[in-house]
Amino acid sequence: MQRKLHTAKTILTALPYIKRFTKKTIVIKYGGAAQINPDLKDRFAQDLVLLYLVGIKPVIIHGGGKRINTFLDKLHLGTEFKDGMRITDEKVMEVVEMVLSGSINKEITTLLNHHGAKAIGISGKDANFIKAKPLDDGKYGLVGDISEINETVLENIINQNFIPVVAPIASGQTLTHPGYNINADWAASKIAVSLKAEKILFLTDTPGVLDKEGKLLSSLNTDEVEALKKDGTIHGGMLPKVNACLEAVANGVKQAHIIDGRIEHSILLELFTDEGVGTVFSQ
Amino acid sequence: MQRKLHTAKTILTALPYIKRFTKKTIVIKYGGAAQINPDLKDRFAQDLVLLYLVGIKPVIIHGGGKRINTFLDKLHLGTEFKDGMRITDEKVMEVVEMVLSGSINKEITTLLNHHGAKAIGISGKDANFIKAKPLDDGKYGLVGDISEINETVLENIINQNFIPVVAPIASGQTLTHPGYNINADWAASKIAVSLKAEKILFLTDTPGVLDKEGKLLSSLNTDEVEALKKDGTIHGGMLPKVNACLEAVANGVKQAHIIDGRIEHSILLELFTDEGVGTVFSQ
Amino acid sequence: MQRKLHTAKTILTALPYIKRFTKKTIVIKYGGAAQINPDLKDRFAQDLVLLYLVGIKPVIIHGGGKRINTFLDKLHLGTEFKDGMRITDEKVMEVVEMVLSGSINKEITTLLNHHGAKAIGISGKDANFIKAKPLDDGKYGLVGDISEINETVLENIINQNFIPVVAPIASGQTLTHPGYNINADWAASKIAVSLKAEKILFLTDTPGVLDKEGKLLSSLNTDEVEALKKDGTIHGGMLPKVNACLEAVANGVKQAHIIDGRIEHSILLELFTDEGVGTVFSQ
Amino acid sequence: MQRKLHTAKTILTALPYIKRFTKKTIVIKYGGAAQINPDLKDRFAQDLVLLYLVGIKPVIIHGGGKRINTFLDKLHLGTEFKDGMRITDEKVMEVVEMVLSGSINKEITTLLNHHGAKAIGISGKDANFIKAKPLDDGKYGLVGDISEINETVLENIINQNFIPVVAPIASGQTLTHPGYNINADWAASKIAVSLKAEKILFLTDTPGVLDKEGKLLSSLNTDEVEALKKDGTIHGGMLPKVNACLEAVANGVKQAHIIDGRIEHSILLELFTDEGVGTVFSQ
Amino acid sequence: MQRKLHTAKTILTALPYIKRFTKKTIVIKYGGAAQINPDLKDRFAQDLVLLYLVGIKPVIIHGGGKRINTFLDKLHLGTEFKDGMRITDEKVMEVVEMVLSGSINKEITTLLNHHGAKAIGISGKDANFIKAKPLDDGKYGLVGDISEINETVLENIINQNFIPVVAPIASGQTLTHPGYNINADWAASKIAVSLKAEKILFLTDTPGVLDKEGKLLSSLNTDEVEALKKDGTIHGGMLPKVNACLEAVANGVKQAHIIDGRIEHSILLELFTDEGVGTVFSQ
Amino acid sequence: MQRKLHTAKTILTALPYIKRFTKKTIVIKYGGAAQINPDLKDRFAQDLVLLYLVGIKPVIIHGGGKRINTFLDKLHLGTEFKDGMRITDEKVMEVVEMVLSGSINKEITTLLNHHGAKAIGISGKDANFIKAKPLDDGKYGLVGDISEINETVLENIINQNFIPVVAPIASGQTLTHPGYNINADWAASKIAVSLKAEKILFLTDTPGVLDKEGKLLSSLNTDEVEALKKDGTIHGGMLPKVNACLEAVANGVKQAHIIDGRIEHSILLELFTDEGVGTVFSQ
Repeated sequence: MQRKLHTAKTILTALPYIKRFTKKTIVIKYGGAAQINPDLKDRFAQDLVLLYLVGIKPVIIHGGGKRINTFLDKLHLGTEFKDGMRITDEKVMEVVEMVLSGSINKEITTLLNHHGAKAIGISGKDANFIKAKPLDDGKYGLVGDISEINETVLENIINQNFIPVVAPIASGQTLTHPGYNINADWAASKIAVSLKAEKILFLTDTPGVLDKEGKLLSSLNTDEVEALKKDGTIHGGMLPKVNACLEAVANGVKQAHIIDGRIEHSILLELFTDEGVGTVFSQ
Repeated sequence: MQRKLHTAKTILTALPYIKRFTKKTIVIKYGGAAQINPDLKDRFAQDLVLLYLVGIKPVIIHGGGKRINTFLDKLHLGTEFKDGMRITDEKVMEVVEMVLSGSINKEITTLLNHHGAKAIGISGKDANFIKAKPLDDGKYGLVGDISEINETVLENIINQNFIPVVAPIASGQTLTHPGYNINADWAASKIAVSLKAEKILFLTDTPGVLDKEGKLLSSLNTDEVEALKKDGTIHGGMLPKVNACLEAVANGVKQAHIIDGRIEHSILLELFTDEGVGTVFSQ
Repeated sequence: MQRKLHTAKTILTALPYIKRFTKKTIVIKYGGAAQINPDLKDRFAQDLVLLYLVGIKPVIIHGGGKRINTFLDKLHLGTEFKDGMRITDEKVMEVVEMVLSGSINKEITTLLNHHGAKAIGISGKDANFIKAKPLDDGKYGLVGDISEINETVLENIINQNFIPVVAPIASGQTLTHPGYNINADWAASKIAVSLKAEKILFLTDTPGVLDKEGKLLSSLNTDEVEALKKDGTIHGGMLPKVNACLEAVANGVKQAHIIDGRIEHSILLELFTDEGVGTVFSQ
Repeated sequence: MQRKLHTAKTILTALPYIKRFTKKTIVIKYGGAAQINPDLKDRFAQDLVLLYLVGIKPVIIHGGGKRINTFLDKLHLGTEFKDGMRITDEKVMEVVEMVLSGSINKEITTLLNHHGAKAIGISGKDANFIKAKPLDDGKYGLVGDISEINETVLENIINQNFIPVVAPIASGQTLTHPGYNINADWAASKIAVSLKAEKILFLTDTPGVLDKEGKLLSSLNTDEVEALKKDGTIHGGMLPKVNACLEAVANGVKQAHIIDGRIEHSILLELFTDEGVGTVFSQ
Repeated sequence: MQRKLHTAKTILTALPYIKRFTKKTIVIKYGGAAQINPDLKDRFAQDLVLLYLVGIKPVIIHGGGKRINTFLDKLHLGTEFKDGMRITDEKVMEVVEMVLSGSINKEITTLLNHHGAKAIGISGKDANFIKAKPLDDGKYGLVGDISEINETVLENIINQNFIPVVAPIASGQTLTHPGYNINADWAASKIAVSLKAEKILFLTDTPGVLDKEGKLLSSLNTDEVEALKKDGTIHGGMLPKVNACLEAVANGVKQAHIIDGRIEHSILLELFTDEGVGTVFSQ
Repeated sequence: MQRKLHTAKTILTALPYIKRFTKKTIVIKYGGAAQINPDLKDRFAQDLVLLYLVGIKPVIIHGGGKRINTFLDKLHLGTEFKDGMRITDEKVMEVVEMVLSGSINKEITTLLNHHGAKAIGISGKDANFIKAKPLDDGKYGLVGDISEINETVLENIINQNFIPVVAPIASGQTLTHPGYNINADWAASKIAVSLKAEKILFLTDTPGVLDKEGKLLSSLNTDEVEALKKDGTIHGGMLPKVNACLEAVANGVKQAHIIDGRIEHSILLELFTDEGVGTVFSQ
């Protein structure tokens, strides 16, 4: 009985967080270890289904880096990277889309459905809801820059009590255009803004933003970030994620989080306990 | 971090139960120690608000025995009991109603509202939704026998996302009739049936139904109950509660529980863990 | 036949008034003789049910002075008055609330239901819809000053075609606070404003506002009232009611009436004939 | 004041009748003196608007005998009658329709609108809602026998809070068919059945059904009517109206009334007082 | 097969036009040869039903000149014209209304219903939705100047998927007023404005606006029209139609068309092919 | 002008077909040449968008044979066929799904969106809406037999005015199950039944069912089909399609068509002209 009582009491520690987030939209960029490790995948799905059942409205945007590479390799299609971007020609784009929309997207959908949610997987080509144009005048081929999001498509799905799972592919301007490969972090940020989300969470394989001593900076505002960018503390691969966070909070999303997806239940830890598992950005 | 992780994992143990009960109506007869002890009241409110936030639809029916006695004493109104029923004349009825509808009902409403739910307190006189006639031809004065429940009044309240808190008073047939004092256990059972509730929980000051050796019988079906009534195992004050349980399960409520309200978070223990805290009745 | 024809013609004299008020909200402060005398109560209920059936949306706020005194006396709880306010300590508050919410409120609800309306009795504690703070820094104990009204609770009840009957009790800021005793006239006025009511009627035991010669002043605007207050014509017990009227008309209620509740069918006389039974205030 | 009080009390005598009929559909065949005499028209409109405002849903079907004759005469178009039916050729039909749909229908609509209702005038040709075929194999030319009523057209109008005013014209089977002249009594009866009306009232220029001594028979059931038809008490022009009443009550309309439209406010007298002004038929 | 393929391809040429106009309101002033010639009537109905089925919302306003004359002649009622207006006394008005509301209106309704639409014919007297006052201080008797349109009546009809067919009659200010004869072109223009229509089409017996050489001017803006009026190119009977067009486009209607109703399927030619059949006006 | 008039008349030949099918659901199995040849793809999209705009509710189910082979080849994954079924192991299944859900599905969605519809591409894994079990006890590996369709997912999409485009993949019973490859013809048939579709069309690379002389059989009922199956006229690759047709018409779909997708606009020819382009099956 004592053990059970402890259980009940622990469940109840979630109450203030549930009250705070119920009926709010929370956008989650899903990627890294949390998307690969079977245990972490399972934990992720449990967390998501809990959010869903307590009335929170999650939206998932996923990437797909490694599996894309695997297939490109199998198909003997080499790819180059420039400025961290994959140079994407039509042949590569075809594989990118198949892996994202046809493999990873449905895998996540299945994961959530089998844990008790109702998820629907789409890409920006569905109902044409994400439009893009070539990034930096086409410097990276079919890597796209989002020009327009029609959020009503996502809202319809959310309002019918489904969880949307979005592959980061955008439609092109013409019928024969193969579409665009868009950065998933950036897509998540733009979608969070278009949905006026309460929060955006980036699941990463880092503990968050670290200071020069390697200590986690658990909370940063826009000015502090700018200083850390200037002095080089934030640099390299962390830069685009931090920029996606700033973009979101600058456009109405209340908080953006970079969290450590390698930790089990990192989403629940972040949302339902008073101890963060990463860095939170606000304006 | 480990402590937090443990928290998250514990919260997630509630998932299968939440899935099972979400959108279901659960009727709770609130009484005994859980209604008097300040700590237990608080725990009760936390449990209720959690149910409410995870999409369960609770309905509260309360009694009020001791406070009624206090006021009758203060007013020098003696009362007799016959067959466990309070002989209720008009003067007594006036006090019974004031205490139930005017004091205890609003106290519970306030308790829930301050913990984050939205509760509305009514009695069977509101919109005339519980009608009664004299029990056993008036042998106990204004003690009533429910003749009709208009459940649409409760459904309206539930559908607007309020928790109804019901005082066990019924309206009489005429304008000048002072109304009826109705047994709260019985009212709860009838209301559960009229709402096609999933479950009914009776919070009591007993551990549940005990066998002749004093061991808890954690689950009973109708036939077993009849046998225990025959051999005298179930007797005395337990009889009416057990009958209210049987009435509910015989008329479509899936399960009826007699639980020990003296235990903290007994509702959550019963609904959200795999260990019961009383006796469950089914058909 | 001639008699019947006369009846029909008389009924039709109500047509222009019905047209004018149909679908409008009319707030009624119910009190005084009309709440005590059995015949007047009956007439009041008939009037209300007629309003209800011809599509007018009445909202009742009641007081309860004499019955509160009776119970305080019976319980040997003396009370003092200062500036016309009952000094309200916790013990007194408990009785005040029981009488208002548990006795008078349900009596009025029953009265209306038995005449053919569907009424629901609530207090400001239900769904926490009237919040208050101590009046004049607590000079009168638990006498409260309304700080917030959540009118959606009343609107929900009205939209489901019920008549709300409101006991003038407000909730306190904390869970253990016993709540506030609020002035019913003032509560009626604030509720009328929050509901953007067409009219507010105060049923009183006076013929209305009289001039220095004792002649009824059948209509007054704000400026005229101010003059009459200055020259002492309006004074004493009439002052707070007049102020409640001014507060209402200053905040969007079209007309406020002080009418003589001692006259049978005073509400119908005021609303459905061209002869007033009191004083009407406008801006 | 006494006079006004009497007024209020008289208005209240309507309460039980309003309660009984509110939200019910009442079909009224409008014709005879009540449609011609300016004072009676006015009284009719007042009665109708009162019904409308107290939540009753009236539907008007009108005839138009005399004005049709006037125009046929002016246009030198003679008409014959056989079995009480106007032999209707195409030229006559054109005039019949113009007078019914273009003159009388809009006159009634205007009458009701100017008294404060919102009325819309249509004929059976609108949305094709009354279909007919030739009566008795075309023995009377374009006199039609109703073959189908699409009541959803009327229900749409009623649900938007309009009073439908129906001209007794039906559409033919082909595009070039001029339509059918249908008996207004019969149309009223069929419409009442299709709308599952509570009552149908026929406004006539008779006091109702009289016995052999000329005394009014104020209430008749189907069997009694059959006996009176057999013994010749009901005969001639009264027969079709009585048959229309029987048809209605045989098919679900609760009561059918033949009332004396020459009496002012006959509708109100019938519906809102306890003294009938004609004969009521029930099953 | 080739013939059929040609058919399919031709049907598909309508696609861009359907996309452009679907869900838009298009007001059509129906008159002239298109309303008289049986073949043209048929073609008109086909066009209308096609618009209706592809999701366009047509509203018809009709005139009735010649049939009114025929009946006035038959009834030996002479009429004078002044400034192109029929001097309308009460006797004439009665005939005008009967022909418009009772004959032509129902004929058009029938025409559309039999081709597969659901049309409802009303006049401005229905629900009082077009109000007028005497034009030019009554210089032309009962010829009216529209003072108010209540477009919600039309919107209700449109939203229930009916086509409204409107007779150009307005209600007067008093109950006994016979109503007003209003110019159908002007009524169409005002209705188009009140409905925020996409387009208004005037079906006429002219090819459109011609220049001094008799060549069709296929498109004109407001300034060009003003110049053509000044130099006398637009004059006589064309002036009021052109003014009705300008009134519409000046008040929010995107385009107004004067088209040649003598050409079969002129509406479809105008809306669904790239070749106009008249003159289009824009701001 | 004559040319244009011819255009208008031709468009109008579609009217009776539009009337017949508007608001009906039509399921289309899309495959073969019509899915590969750029011109035919374009024609297909035009046809679909026209159906969509005239109020018909199309649902697309596609296959993907050739592109799957291409990718299996590129990835050096050989596949065997048994009884016309692709033996599908996990490695093959991964490619099948990527091509169907990630490449072909989005290509069709894009095609329709760019022609003016709003299409959303999903597979049976989305919201778990198609469930399957191994066909013939797993004889063909992961080739599945549909066990359940949750049509509400499709209905939600249709009701929001989107065209669903369905990849023939079903979800498995467990979380780690890779899903099932299901026959697209059979999926189309089951979906048509679950949606109570009016029609199902199979776009094939055959002219339809031919008799022994090679002449097209333009219409067949169930009995005739059984005879033709017995005598070997229907055999080989035609058998499964014919069986899918029979399954549909046996379960409530009105008509099933095998049409020649190699003919331009074959859908429009079939639905909107009186000349079929294949074989129609009915019960």
